[in-house]
Amino acid sequence: MVGAIFSQSLTAAALLLGQATAYNKRYIDNSTGTPQVVIPGASSYNGLNLVPQMGWNNWNAFHCNVNETLLLSTAQNMVDLGLRDLGYNYIVMDDCWSIGRNSSGYLVENPVKFPNGIKDITDKIHALGMKFGMYSSAGVFTCGRYPGSLGFETQDADLWASWGVDYLKYDNCFNQGQSGTPKLSFDRYNVMSKALNATGRDIVYSMCNWGNDDPYDWAYTIANSGRMSGDIYDSFNRPDDRCPCTEAVGCAWPGFHCSVMNILNKMPAIQSRTMSGYFNDMDMLEIGNGGQSDSEYVVHFTMWAMNSSPLLIGTNIGTLSPANLAIYSNPAIIALNQDKSAGAAVRKWRYVVDPDETGQGEISLWTRSMANGDTVIALLNAANTTMMMNATMNDIFFDQRTAGAYQAPPQLSQTWDVYDLWANRMTEEEAAAVINGTSTLSENSTSRYNATATSYIEGIAANNTALMGVKVGSIAPSGTFSAEIARHSVGIYRLRSQGKASPRKRDEL
Amino acid sequence: MVGAIFSQSLTAAALLLGQATAYNKRYIDNSTGTPQVVIPGASSYNGLNLVPQMGWNNWNAFHCNVNETLLLSTAQNMVDLGLRDLGYNYIVMDDCWSIGRNSSGYLVENPVKFPNGIKDITDKIHALGMKFGMYSSAGVFTCGRYPGSLGFETQDADLWASWGVDYLKYDNCFNQGQSGTPKLSFDRYNVMSKALNATGRDIVYSMCNWGNDDPYDWAYTIANSGRMSGDIYDSFNRPDDRCPCTEAVGCAWPGFHCSVMNILNKMPAIQSRTMSGYFNDMDMLEIGNGGQSDSEYVVHFTMWAMNSSPLLIGTNIGTLSPANLAIYSNPAIIALNQDKSAGAAVRKWRYVVDPDETGQGEISLWTRSMANGDTVIALLNAANTTMMMNATMNDIFFDQRTAGAYQAPPQLSQTWDVYDLWANRMTEEEAAAVINGTSTLSENSTSRYNATATSYIEGIAANNTALMGVKVGSIAPSGTFSAEIARHSVGIYRLRSQGKASPRKRDEL
Amino acid sequence: MVGAIFSQSLTAAALLLGQATAYNKRYIDNSTGTPQVVIPGASSYNGLNLVPQMGWNNWNAFHCNVNETLLLSTAQNMVDLGLRDLGYNYIVMDDCWSIGRNSSGYLVENPVKFPNGIKDITDKIHALGMKFGMYSSAGVFTCGRYPGSLGFETQDADLWASWGVDYLKYDNCFNQGQSGTPKLSFDRYNVMSKALNATGRDIVYSMCNWGNDDPYDWAYTIANSGRMSGDIYDSFNRPDDRCPCTEAVGCAWPGFHCSVMNILNKMPAIQSRTMSGYFNDMDMLEIGNGGQSDSEYVVHFTMWAMNSSPLLIGTNIGTLSPANLAIYSNPAIIALNQDKSAGAAVRKWRYVVDPDETGQGEISLWTRSMANGDTVIALLNAANTTMMMNATMNDIFFDQRTAGAYQAPPQLSQTWDVYDLWANRMTEEEAAAVINGTSTLSENSTSRYNATATSYIEGIAANNTALMGVKVGSIAPSGTFSAEIARHSVGIYRLRSQGKASPRKRDEL
Amino acid sequence: MVGAIFSQSLTAAALLLGQATAYNKRYIDNSTGTPQVVIPGASSYNGLNLVPQMGWNNWNAFHCNVNETLLLSTAQNMVDLGLRDLGYNYIVMDDCWSIGRNSSGYLVENPVKFPNGIKDITDKIHALGMKFGMYSSAGVFTCGRYPGSLGFETQDADLWASWGVDYLKYDNCFNQGQSGTPKLSFDRYNVMSKALNATGRDIVYSMCNWGNDDPYDWAYTIANSGRMSGDIYDSFNRPDDRCPCTEAVGCAWPGFHCSVMNILNKMPAIQSRTMSGYFNDMDMLEIGNGGQSDSEYVVHFTMWAMNSSPLLIGTNIGTLSPANLAIYSNPAIIALNQDKSAGAAVRKWRYVVDPDETGQGEISLWTRSMANGDTVIALLNAANTTMMMNATMNDIFFDQRTAGAYQAPPQLSQTWDVYDLWANRMTEEEAAAVINGTSTLSENSTSRYNATATSYIEGIAANNTALMGVKVGSIAPSGTFSAEIARHSVGIYRLRSQGKASPRKRDEL
Repeated sequence: MVGAIFSQSLTAAALLLGQATAYNKRYIDNSTGTPQVVIPGASSYNGLNLVPQMGWNNWNAFHCNVNETLLLSTAQNMVDLGLRDLGYNYIVMDDCWSIGRNSSGYLVENPVKFPNGIKDITDKIHALGMKFGMYSSAGVFTCGRYPGSLGFETQDADLWASWGVDYLKYDNCFNQGQSGTPKLSFDRYNVMSKALNATGRDIVYSMCNWGNDDPYDWAYTIANSGRMSGDIYDSFNRPDDRCPCTEAVGCAWPGFHCSVMNILNKMPAIQSRTMSGYFNDMDMLEIGNGGQSDSEYVVHFTMWAMNSSPLLIGTNIGTLSPANLAIYSNPAIIALNQDKSAGAAVRKWRYVVDPDETGQGEISLWTRSMANGDTVIALLNAANTTMMMNATMNDIFFDQRTAGAYQAPPQLSQTWDVYDLWANRMTEEEAAAVINGTSTLSENSTSRYNATATSYIEGIAANNTALMGVKVGSIAPSGTFSAEIARHSVGIYRLRSQGKASPRKRDEL
Repeated sequence: MVGAIFSQSLTAAALLLGQATAYNKRYIDNSTGTPQVVIPGASSYNGLNLVPQMGWNNWNAFHCNVNETLLLSTAQNMVDLGLRDLGYNYIVMDDCWSIGRNSSGYLVENPVKFPNGIKDITDKIHALGMKFGMYSSAGVFTCGRYPGSLGFETQDADLWASWGVDYLKYDNCFNQGQSGTPKLSFDRYNVMSKALNATGRDIVYSMCNWGNDDPYDWAYTIANSGRMSGDIYDSFNRPDDRCPCTEAVGCAWPGFHCSVMNILNKMPAIQSRTMSGYFNDMDMLEIGNGGQSDSEYVVHFTMWAMNSSPLLIGTNIGTLSPANLAIYSNPAIIALNQDKSAGAAVRKWRYVVDPDETGQGEISLWTRSMANGDTVIALLNAANTTMMMNATMNDIFFDQRTAGAYQAPPQLSQTWDVYDLWANRMTEEEAAAVINGTSTLSENSTSRYNATATSYIEGIAANNTALMGVKVGSIAPSGTFSAEIARHSVGIYRLRSQGKASPRKRDEL
Repeated sequence: MVGAIFSQSLTAAALLLGQATAYNKRYIDNSTGTPQVVIPGASSYNGLNLVPQMGWNNWNAFHCNVNETLLLSTAQNMVDLGLRDLGYNYIVMDDCWSIGRNSSGYLVENPVKFPNGIKDITDKIHALGMKFGMYSSAGVFTCGRYPGSLGFETQDADLWASWGVDYLKYDNCFNQGQSGTPKLSFDRYNVMSKALNATGRDIVYSMCNWGNDDPYDWAYTIANSGRMSGDIYDSFNRPDDRCPCTEAVGCAWPGFHCSVMNILNKMPAIQSRTMSGYFNDMDMLEIGNGGQSDSEYVVHFTMWAMNSSPLLIGTNIGTLSPANLAIYSNPAIIALNQDKSAGAAVRKWRYVVDPDETGQGEISLWTRSMANGDTVIALLNAANTTMMMNATMNDIFFDQRTAGAYQAPPQLSQTWDVYDLWANRMTEEEAAAVINGTSTLSENSTSRYNATATSYIEGIAANNTALMGVKVGSIAPSGTFSAEIARHSVGIYRLRSQGKASPRKRDEL
Repeated sequence: MVGAIFSQSLTAAALLLGQATAYNKRYIDNSTGTPQVVIPGASSYNGLNLVPQMGWNNWNAFHCNVNETLLLSTAQNMVDLGLRDLGYNYIVMDDCWSIGRNSSGYLVENPVKFPNGIKDITDKIHALGMKFGMYSSAGVFTCGRYPGSLGFETQDADLWASWGVDYLKYDNCFNQGQSGTPKLSFDRYNVMSKALNATGRDIVYSMCNWGNDDPYDWAYTIANSGRMSGDIYDSFNRPDDRCPCTEAVGCAWPGFHCSVMNILNKMPAIQSRTMSGYFNDMDMLEIGNGGQSDSEYVVHFTMWAMNSSPLLIGTNIGTLSPANLAIYSNPAIIALNQDKSAGAAVRKWRYVVDPDETGQGEISLWTRSMANGDTVIALLNAANTTMMMNATMNDIFFDQRTAGAYQAPPQLSQTWDVYDLWANRMTEEEAAAVINGTSTLSENSTSRYNATATSYIEGIAANNTALMGVKVGSIAPSGTFSAEIARHSVGIYRLRSQGKASPRKRDEL
């Protein structure tokens, strides 16, 4: 656990720090009541995004059809639906917003789409308590063939900062072949990283180079998140010729039209490269776009959250169905994603079995340790029929058993209570009431939560029911947890020790 | 659809454009009746080749045996056979035309092969209403070990421009090891790109580096087309040790002796990298060279056209058989290729089945959206026996169903008429008459077309029978189209909605 | 055999040597009684580590929890248990020892962990007759996000030399994407190599870049050892998603959580790249950490020694069990590791058979030639059940048979006595007595050895029983040696010719 | 066919040539009676080695044990046995000849091994009508850890030229990681290429970088031959862990201990990259070293010759057996190798069948076109039992059938006489007499040949029986040639048309 590294109390030593000119941020975490020494830049290259960013991006549902009305009405809708207060606070505008550069070389926003300018939009979004994200590409054009920022990094970063931009999604199209080794891609993306820092404004830097040249191996010192695969499409597991790779690492052609399962299965090998301040971005959420069943969307949302992926809603908020709102709004799942442990899940086992009509079928067990000592497990059934699935204590705590420990892991001798994290999902009726503005549910009911008022960390510490879900059993030492999981579904459970919570062991990077 | 990006009407904004010194062309598309703002260079790096180039190249049939007589007689034959007016307007001379450099470093044409010089040839070809293509290599020698242009790019481009050259095929032999990353190949090919632009003459730049270092990922900002595989040979599907790769992406050794099916199967992964102004070149056509059956040549021609490959006739025009002329002359197929959508086909499914004596066997469904809202489907049977093949509405419009749409795709609720694009193929008797100069067919018969007189766009808009083929049925919403497809054959159909044509959704690059 | 290269007696020629400024060490081996000419730097780039380093490192068992008490008490324990005198003489401190850089840019040790400073620790460890190893990373941070040495190489090397450091483990985290070709990694690691040499102090340079960019192909001219795989974990053969490669060469993602068998199976292809002065490091030993059975730990220790891997104890010495002490203390196995031949083992055959519950199962024969003409063979049973295994003379001496010899290999006509190298393993009772300080065993009993007093070379020359093990048979010319090997076990045997020992043929690099 | 490129008669044009300063050689081929224009450097970068080099190298049999006596006695033996006059005229000394550099930086030969210096050896070898080859490495050390030439290229080339050296084998050990892209390896090897040319002496440049970074794709403009695989060992087809690749192209770890069949199967993909002046070197011959059967050695020799590999004898000439001399001395096979066509063979088909005890088994058909219009076919049986094998006219002339020809290939309508090229192999008795100096055979018997007196080209033109072998049948148009081929054997046949020999079509590079 990265956080554990910094837990020594060393007031005097702080005097020695100071020469880290490469990074312009530091942070002091006082949550333990003790001043902590922090290596400048050592967690989050710019001090931002210590847990995954959440928000909305227009691309998946609207593509190039972005404009002032869409952005502002969506922001208002997110406030009204409680999404902002669940943590979805970035409104990210994607491609096709400019019309070119002016004679001074500055980008010019499309005056038809943005009659009042983009600065006006950021002001209004800030007034709603939300933040605004901008888009460009580390190439001569954006993917839609609008002007890119390659060679204009400083000018563009300065402009965006002057507009009050809080976030940059930085794409990889038309990059003039400046790729082929990690060094070539690092150097290209680092130019914008430095330009953003030089503005003096806090701007989250979200790299979107599709995993090209393996950014999970080098982007954490220059960015806050990085896409690790080709673009998602709204399919649970159908292979598509345009997304040829089944492994993340060394993929020569990330492509697009990558299914939920395709992207998910690229995560286990790079599990250790998710860390506070840098998240492997599994791409924007498709929930609500119509290509998957409800249980498949639940898998999509659950496994993205479980792996600390950024959570960017990628559908039309204005036409969101009650069922889809209920998925996006499950605070128990969001609390996993926003946990300070800031880690990805470990896939403990996977079996390829029982294929469906796409030729795909598999089951797997995923686990993750939480900052407070809880453990979360996910039993994923991506096979074609209902399965009785088992998670043994030995599998759940396998890492602790083989961590090079010189004593037996305490977890194995404890009894763990098991909480089902989807048990309190909002009913369709409740969600419809939220949408209609007729909800009578308290923001602190069993199915709703206001993280603006009470942080997820505080809520978990207080055993808030909306975050804990419903207790469905317990596992004794050497025991096994079993559950029947339907086709294309996931069971996800928070395990809390009946004894003292034990600190999680960190793994070497 | 790339064109859709530029569809905002923004008269005032045009004032802001101007600083794009890297590119020396722009275009204004007035087809909608509204002035459009265009990012300089954003479609076609030099404004040329917005649809795939068509013409003839001597290599496949004549190799090094090129000379004045061959070039001029071929050009005349192409006019006489109506090929020029079908769009085949480039006469491209391949390797072995020079004898070295003179004391000033300029290339010297072979005086025996070209007793009147190459300038004389370009003049005569221009006089026929055609254009002339030149050949060289981005190495110290051409593939035939004649002088290459590496290090002489400016001198060579200037010479060719002075000769009136309209096109350059630029090969990859003897490149001094300047490869291994996209950057190394990009930088080497970019030198010639800039040299051609600097001449001020419109010269289509056709890269021929066999897919080495994945040019489909970077060449569109410096070239008009790029080969994406090793050299073709006149075989339908026989694997040959000299063409070792079965996937385009990351192929370490493109080789040569690649079959039609080998090259075709390298296209689906890179489908999104075909775009107006830059085409993935599947290599020159072998129809007429004797290595394949008539139905195999039909597959070859159809799938090249369907994927917006350049169409370069690669056989001896002077001895063209009636059957082969009929293939090259099908205006309904050429109209697909020259459609403004300028995209490649999507392979919706592929099954490996029923191998023939080469060990290969497969069937597949390909689809493509046309600029006017039509959809084209190809049912390809490369298996060993006749197959009854099906295309469901769900498969045909799969991309629309999963495009992140926030509303159901309208295509699925429409009824589509189905037109067979080979139904109006010229009979052998008709074709023989064309060859003999005794044809009485109008140029606007059901099997002939004059695109010089009436563009393919206009013809399609006018429902010209030669371009539309013959209606063979229709598909209702949720329906399926079925056809019996013979061994090593393809059925290709244009689908036109009985309702209003719907715009095609674009995919992210 | 590398040593054989230098065996000419050339006194006069020594005058000619002198201009090798790139390397600051040379060595003269007088063991043959004749002065030998040695190319400067030609064996060991800095003259150090002619046989694999041995010692202890805190990471596997203690991770970041390192401090003065742990280091000094461990050193004392190693003296008391006889481990120092078996050759384990480096105490290597791993990550998490610093708190940053001071205003002059020098690293500062953590004053809580090291209240008397690190210089004090090195002095005390030196006083115990042992050496001290330091840790850093060729990146901007260490793997634990402490300051790394990239850009600070000279300053850091100078500081460590001033502290009396004898050894550097140099990791690969946060390397700013400076990888992707051997050249990029070589250049980065070479900066520290030169900085260490420039200090004038003898410092063993232990590269830890996990096999990235294939260091076994270039690191021998700049380092003394180099990790060749992702990090080990305490499992015999369970595949883990986080260690995706099964081959060392060209592995794009070394990862971690690599099992003993996973790492071992990466060695055969790179066998020739282990040499005196540079060893392929299979990572630290897990024996004692609880994840494997006794016989599995025996395989782990045996195969590491057999392949001339560095032997770094990776467990808590203070709580070492008698059984585990008995493994670490087998002088017959250590003598293989410390043999002057300094080579890796050759895997003569491998069969994938009889999988266990992890899905893995295999048997294999490994051989290695010793400096004195002995041959060692290992029959490894990593299958699920007991196997009767055979080693034929033809297999054992296969390399000699195909070495391009112009005469028959003499080994095939000799009879070889077979000594079991685990037969004299300390009993648990004896080991417990050593731990309790109540042992009455002589240091030169059949199960103990003091290499400080008598080198392994001398001991082997004197046929010391603790080093030779127990004779269990002999193999006649054309014969076969057979042994029953239990599940997950190894039989390892030293073969000594009854005739004159023959020199081993060297292979080309 | 490369030669065909230069066949235009263009006296006047020669005036235009002159500015090719990069290359210092040209050649005029008058064999057709007409002066030919040749692009400077376009065939053979330095004008040397238009057919593959032949000779002897000490490494395979003697490794480092090289000295004056061995070199001179071997040269004399090669004269006496008639090997020189068969074309084996290079005596190549391998590694371990120096003792370091002197104070001026020049390499110094080992005075014990070479008491009279190397200049004295080259003089004596020249006096025998033979040439002398030197060895070094493009690294800081040779593979045996003697000084390498990296950074000393000019000094070393000058020294060797002053000694009268005619040839350089240039290895790849200890290259400081200067590899990873073709460019990095090209640049490193090019330094020596330029240094050799700058000496003004004719020195054949034989690259030995084991196929690393795919030299067959770039080395032909800087070298005369290039190794294309890891080192050979004396085994017919046994896989060895130390030679992990089964494909040449993109092999990340060429290794060593590569069998004859392993190396052979790496040739078909790179067939087009063998050309006059640059040969893909399959490594030195093992015939005589004892690891293979007589018929396996015949396969080894035949397939090396068939593929225009350099032919370097790699055994002890002084103890050569009659059977092995008979293999090395078959002039009919050597004539293939020394044919001016200078091409590699095409593998027309291969089937993996009938494995032997190594797990390997396959049969294949190879063909090659000769400069005079003859065609050679090889039926290779590397399976475990005798096979009746067939070569159809369609397979033999497959390339002609699919060459893009606009007329039918004339070869298919001809009848071809079939000559068995091993039918005239010297008997053991005859070979023994040659060895004993008691042979009464004329140098122009059916089994011997003196190429010094009469070139192979002249001999073939004169239908010399020793070169043509024995006629064993003929193949009619559309016919098939069948032969029973024993296990691990090859049948090789020269086909001569009963009609007019037709020129071979060239393939694009």
